[in-house]
Amino acid sequence: LTIITLTPDLQTRLSSSESRIDQLERENAEKPKVAFYTALTDAGTLGPYNTDITLKYSKVFTNIGNAYNPSTGFFTAPVKGVYNLQFTGYCYHGGNVAVHVYKNNQRIMNNWEISNDNVPGYLTNSLVLELTAGDEIHLVLPSGFSIHDSGNNHSSFSGSLLFTL
Amino acid sequence: LTIITLTPDLQTRLSSSESRIDQLERENAEKPKVAFYTALTDAGTLGPYNTDITLKYSKVFTNIGNAYNPSTGFFTAPVKGVYNLQFTGYCYHGGNVAVHVYKNNQRIMNNWEISNDNVPGYLTNSLVLELTAGDEIHLVLPSGFSIHDSGNNHSSFSGSLLFTL
Amino acid sequence: LTIITLTPDLQTRLSSSESRIDQLERENAEKPKVAFYTALTDAGTLGPYNTDITLKYSKVFTNIGNAYNPSTGFFTAPVKGVYNLQFTGYCYHGGNVAVHVYKNNQRIMNNWEISNDNVPGYLTNSLVLELTAGDEIHLVLPSGFSIHDSGNNHSSFSGSLLFTL
Repeated sequence: LTIITLTPDLQTRLSSSESRIDQLERENAEKPKVAFYTALTDAGTLGPYNTDITLKYSKVFTNIGNAYNPSTGFFTAPVKGVYNLQFTGYCYHGGNVAVHVYKNNQRIMNNWEISNDNVPGYLTNSLVLELTAGDEIHLVLPSGFSIHDSGNNHSSFSGSLLFTL
Repeated sequence: LTIITLTPDLQTRLSSSESRIDQLERENAEKPKVAFYTALTDAGTLGPYNTDITLKYSKVFTNIGNAYNPSTGFFTAPVKGVYNLQFTGYCYHGGNVAVHVYKNNQRIMNNWEISNDNVPGYLTNSLVLELTAGDEIHLVLPSGFSIHDSGNNHSSFSGSLLFTL
Repeated sequence: LTIITLTPDLQTRLSSSESRIDQLERENAEKPKVAFYTALTDAGTLGPYNTDITLKYSKVFTNIGNAYNPSTGFFTAPVKGVYNLQFTGYCYHGGNVAVHVYKNNQRIMNNWEISNDNVPGYLTNSLVLELTAGDEIHLVLPSGFSIHDSGNNHSSFSGSLLFTL
């Protein structure tokens, strides 16, 4: 056996291949899996209250990545990226439903509906947000409004990471 | 020409690169493309009926991966993963709309709206579900309720694979 | 130093690895990042008008890839792929809301709601569409209907690329 020295060209090609594989592996690893889907409560109607309250969606059906915390009601972005978020609020006969959206304690969307004829009402909305790691999203029931949920799971809150930035 | 034996180091590096490329190719191949978008019917109002019926969305505008079957109304997950699903139900003047969601014949979400003033009504909801290959999702019109669609395509059902697990 | 000729087997393996890496890099590069999220206006109620008007969502909160153009209200698909699109239209007390969806100037979805009891109304819908590069989507307020938005941002329009084709 003789130890030989390879042609410089081959050494360069192999090193280049290795660093390109490194980069491809990094790109795949950097795409974490984040998705959640929750429903509000089995307790029936919440509100109306005298103050705004954070909605703590307690029935967690999906929580890949554990970015949603049911004890606070907060979704916290684990990485910088673009996220899709969606929710539906339901009010029972005669109630007025509202769902406000907060990002880091700043209100960024308000939704409300008034029912003056004793029928239930629905409202649904979606957001596609660029979030930095640590940014928090939560939903709020404003004072004077109510929201209803039960085993029907119609008052839902869900979201997912679309891609990292 | 002399057949030479390479340095063990180089052989190891090349073999390692090859198996890393294998793994990257597997990861890309394992991400199938699944997305569908349908509208219910051109036939106007369905229901009210005396029994629950499966809603067969017959207008299939998108069906990448063929996971939605218009002859049964069932969406069948082709791989284990997290799926986003969304639907809108519309009722015409004076009708009461409802859309229930079933996973493998178990009801997981109920939505309904009552119209007592001869106006149309909308309801929209979304789910983000962790499904195993073969899990089925379908939507149901419960007895006593109705749903409307036409060339307007407002009673829709759509979904997509977010990522595999 | 002696220039040596490698065994043909090794040359083949390295060339094969390089072309597999080329392909993996192409697959990653071909997945552009496209997502947008907008709200309509701070100007209150638009309409009713005597003609259909294109809704120009002027508050652009997210526009990764710049596929949405606020000066025209058009979303233009930058690559062939499957896109998720969603919107919510809100009408204020006594207004009748409608949002129609156009693909390349062909109407593909109509939504409207009539409010005869002086309450606000919501409608939300989603589409999952296979688009070719250059296909355009825009939303229209039909004649005789109105839509409302304000700092509340409840009349929203958003979308994202799910995957390329």
